Amino acid sequence: MLSKREVFDGVPEEYLSHKERYENAIRNSVVAFSLVRKMQEEGKTSINNYRDVVGGLLGSSVLRDGSPLGLHYIMFMPAILNQANEEQQEKWLPRAWNCSIIGSYAQTELGHGTFIRGLETTATYDAATKQFVLHSPTLTAYKWWPGGLGQTANYCIVVAQLYTKGQCHGIHSFIIQVRDEETHMPLPGIKIGEIGAKLGLNAVNNGFLGFDNYRIPRTNMLMKHAQVLEDGTYVKSRHSKLNYGAMVFVRVVIVFDMVNYLSKAVTIATRFSAVRRQCQLKAGETECQILDYVTQQHKLFVSIAAAHAFRITANKLWLTFNEVNEQLVEGNLQRLPELHALACCLKAVTTADTAACVERCRLACGGHGYMMSSSLPLTYGLVTAACTYEGENTVLLLQTARFLVKTYQQLDSKALTPTVAYLKTAAAERFCVGWSNTTEGIIRGFQVVAMRVIIMSTFNEEVQEMSRTVSPQLKEVLHQLVDLYCTYWALEKLSDLLLYTPISQKEVESLRLRYEETLTNLRPNAVGLVDAFDLRDEMLQSTLGSYDGRVYERLMEEAMKSPLNAEPMLQSTLGSYDGRVYERLMEEAMKSPLNAEPVNYTFHKYLKPFMQGKL
Amino acid sequence: MLSKREVFDGVPEEYLSHKERYENAIRNSVVAFSLVRKMQEEGKTSINNYRDVVGGLLGSSVLRDGSPLGLHYIMFMPAILNQANEEQQEKWLPRAWNCSIIGSYAQTELGHGTFIRGLETTATYDAATKQFVLHSPTLTAYKWWPGGLGQTANYCIVVAQLYTKGQCHGIHSFIIQVRDEETHMPLPGIKIGEIGAKLGLNAVNNGFLGFDNYRIPRTNMLMKHAQVLEDGTYVKSRHSKLNYGAMVFVRVVIVFDMVNYLSKAVTIATRFSAVRRQCQLKAGETECQILDYVTQQHKLFVSIAAAHAFRITANKLWLTFNEVNEQLVEGNLQRLPELHALACCLKAVTTADTAACVERCRLACGGHGYMMSSSLPLTYGLVTAACTYEGENTVLLLQTARFLVKTYQQLDSKALTPTVAYLKTAAAERFCVGWSNTTEGIIRGFQVVAMRVIIMSTFNEEVQEMSRTVSPQLKEVLHQLVDLYCTYWALEKLSDLLLYTPISQKEVESLRLRYEETLTNLRPNAVGLVDAFDLRDEMLQSTLGSYDGRVYERLMEEAMKSPLNAEPMLQSTLGSYDGRVYERLMEEAMKSPLNAEPVNYTFHKYLKPFMQGKL
Repeated sequence: MLSKREVFDGVPEEYLSHKERYENAIRNSVVAFSLVRKMQEEGKTSINNYRDVVGGLLGSSVLRDGSPLGLHYIMFMPAILNQANEEQQEKWLPRAWNCSIIGSYAQTELGHGTFIRGLETTATYDAATKQFVLHSPTLTAYKWWPGGLGQTANYCIVVAQLYTKGQCHGIHSFIIQVRDEETHMPLPGIKIGEIGAKLGLNAVNNGFLGFDNYRIPRTNMLMKHAQVLEDGTYVKSRHSKLNYGAMVFVRVVIVFDMVNYLSKAVTIATRFSAVRRQCQLKAGETECQILDYVTQQHKLFVSIAAAHAFRITANKLWLTFNEVNEQLVEGNLQRLPELHALACCLKAVTTADTAACVERCRLACGGHGYMMSSSLPLTYGLVTAACTYEGENTVLLLQTARFLVKTYQQLDSKALTPTVAYLKTAAAERFCVGWSNTTEGIIRGFQVVAMRVIIMSTFNEEVQEMSRTVSPQLKEVLHQLVDLYCTYWALEKLSDLLLYTPISQKEVESLRLRYEETLTNLRPNAVGLVDAFDLRDEMLQSTLGSYDGRVYERLMEEAMKSPLNAEPMLQSTLGSYDGRVYERLMEEAMKSPLNAEPVNYTFHKYLKPFMQGKL
Repeated sequence: MLSKREVFDGVPEEYLSHKERYENAIRNSVVAFSLVRKMQEEGKTSINNYRDVVGGLLGSSVLRDGSPLGLHYIMFMPAILNQANEEQQEKWLPRAWNCSIIGSYAQTELGHGTFIRGLETTATYDAATKQFVLHSPTLTAYKWWPGGLGQTANYCIVVAQLYTKGQCHGIHSFIIQVRDEETHMPLPGIKIGEIGAKLGLNAVNNGFLGFDNYRIPRTNMLMKHAQVLEDGTYVKSRHSKLNYGAMVFVRVVIVFDMVNYLSKAVTIATRFSAVRRQCQLKAGETECQILDYVTQQHKLFVSIAAAHAFRITANKLWLTFNEVNEQLVEGNLQRLPELHALACCLKAVTTADTAACVERCRLACGGHGYMMSSSLPLTYGLVTAACTYEGENTVLLLQTARFLVKTYQQLDSKALTPTVAYLKTAAAERFCVGWSNTTEGIIRGFQVVAMRVIIMSTFNEEVQEMSRTVSPQLKEVLHQLVDLYCTYWALEKLSDLLLYTPISQKEVESLRLRYEETLTNLRPNAVGLVDAFDLRDEMLQSTLGSYDGRVYERLMEEAMKSPLNAEPMLQSTLGSYDGRVYERLMEEAMKSPLNAEPVNYTFHKYLKPFMQGKL
């Protein structure tokens, strides 16, 4: 059911108006998430299973530009789980779980994102009525971005500055009804709407939210950690850091998203490069597949390796996250800083690298990569957003750096957790043994310059591990991918290695040769490697990347779907090249909201008078 | 008149359907190009004047996503000027000049772009009827991409393989009528339509074109150079290279476009960074402008310097182009290879750098840079397209490299033209004098590694030249910009310098310090420098970049324009923050094609049954 690009309409989304796209998104979302509810009723609710299904749906073809219900699953419910006390969970979770209420999560404001302490929205406790008064004192205090808040959600978790007994106790979370459950009208004192068109994610219905002295019961403050008693007494949380939980969870999910988007983009670009031919090496010969050009291999192959490297690292992060969470339940916070730093670093590195790789894949498809029907522009729009949301990358990298420096300063005083243990060895060794152009040598080099080392060594270790059980042929390819990833980044970050390791000019030259050899060795397996990602055509949704390689036919078929083509095309004999074009044309003409005149009225109204000099 | 974002409708384009956007584009284009016709009638037709006006219009707010008439001016008319003989020019130019016919230019095919010799469209001469027979033997032979061809143009220059007397003579140009001048219907044998939605340029109405044994008179082959006589005898061109003219012209225009887009993006991002505040350095202090963070300065300032560097280099290229063209008229082709290499190199470098800079400016604005209303996503969509069209960048860089290597091999045997003279000095010197962290030293370094040296030294020379006439204060800032540009690229391409020049680790460290100092020194003038680009708010069309800094008010005002907000917002008291919101809301409600129900029907039809478990 989810394999259809549009559940209801036949006109591709890119031709619809903003409003029609929202209506499509709602129609498709309720169909898709009915499946999740079925799954829940059948008890398939383990967190992994759940993550896969929801993540899969949000990346699926029907919800390819996101969903107004996404945040309900990814932020609203997790926030209740992490921050509501038992009583509150009993009250809210069942209704959220079966979607009898739809929620969003509102933290960022028009004027504040990264600097959360600066949020302006206030929640002032009124002991007389046992209520909190929510208020937006300024325009910049308006909540801005929450998914689904625009026209969709009727509840929302809101982060606001808590005031009680005249004192501010910093930011806390509140569950707030924003629309009437029956009529869906915004409640009095609630100012709510959509923030408008964006580069991508236009199906998400991101909203704004302002409060005009809006009152909620005391019990709507999420009180698992901090509390406000009836008389207004503030009881603070035992662990200030516990709220990290939800934030880290989302960042883990993001790393998995990046793996999906990257696999998708490189599958499309690699398959296209096997179909596309350009230039004869000898006159009279058939033109070569562009995948045979080393420049094209350089653009694509590292993305295949990176997709595997990220997936392996993401799995490791997921395990760490679950371990640390179990420890949290027992009140053990020891590994929280490391988990936080890991999530920061991996979110920033994987989103930045994926954005660069996806865009390179798109550009590697030439003009055809610029077509919406290639699915590559949409994919870039989704990926580049992840560089900003849930922690802006520059800020996250600074936090990672701070963690690393802090750890480095305590090298001797403190036992190091596995992920940062390399700081010690690197500090100790300092290449007494000299440079070596091996995977291990390169990793040691990066340990010194502390770049991408976590991903690289995890990738290498896991592949070493796998190698014991797989066929020699597969083992070889896996090692080629590790090789490629390491040599690629060694050459990309060469200046660091030249400055801080003993690598010589001669070794650099042989490293370049080794990189090019690896590209050549991977070439025969390139298409097989992306086929191995096993992404159905219906998930790729791309004219350039389908399994059967019918690139040019699909490009033309998609072009036929443009409402602008419906009428004039009836004049054409295009059908002679594709038996199904006429049928499709008729179908499209029936579906699409076109005026019946054979020529667009703009010709007679504007173009013709202009051409005749009457305008 | 062109300062209004929409000439007719009040609803921003991003909310319209694909079809409505085309109709807007036509309405706006005929209004805009009526001005060009007026200008022509007033005799303001010098090529520079002309370039500025047409270029300005195509970059203007009403045609911000391109125009279906763009190619008529940028390719159709220049092609007639360069390739038609006098007789043909007399016949076609006046009609094209006053737009009584609208033309496009069709070269690229579905299956062939870069490898022009591989084009499949055939033009076979039939001596009996004195006609050429145009035919598309395969689907991949279809012309694909020509601007305005979809539903707009009625004529087109078509590049096809010329056959006469059973012999193929390679590609030649033909002027072809594709639609009836009266009814605008496609002519029999013409298969024509739109190629569909793209990442950007959706107002350009890019089209496809196929021929089914379509006949045109012999005299429709453009015969300034090669000819086919009535009996079918082929007379070949004296100079095979003459057709480069049009291609080079377009690439020069592209470099100027990049200057405009880059100035626009960095103006928006710099002004936003002066308004946006984030984080207190001391508790209780007001938060700092993000423009004060060195990370932000690092992201933005190089774009200010690059905009000047590109403008200066583009002017030089424009002069060279005109000189070489005058020599061509006299049959002197000597400098054509150099001009061609220059245009290749500068097109590739400026489009790639501008795309990177614009995207960095967008990301530097955080989430707000993701809003269409910031104008940054649209700008990136236009710029990244230029990395592919009119010569794919990777291919152009390979051509540049070939020219450089060829020149290098002939160092002694041949006198070098100014732009490549550095190859000799670089080869000679080889840093007998050692490295120096000065602008001159860095340029000498890049001469050795041959990176971006043309832009860098031109920038430096011109600024030295200007310095003689300007105030000391202006001189200082200009030199800071040159410094910034050189140090930035020295650090970006550090591995090349470390490998091939005597730069030391110590000199690298002081180079980094010097770079950061330059950022600090430029900070006080940053806003002044972008104001100096003198781009009117109406041209910027950005909520983030306007002169008065009303960022947050504009973001909210634009959000109000979303058709999704019209009805629910009547419920809100948002007006309390902005006196004009209600009026605007009413206006919007009147304008926009909305259904009157207070809540979108999707709630009652889909969302509510879903929430009640009935779906």
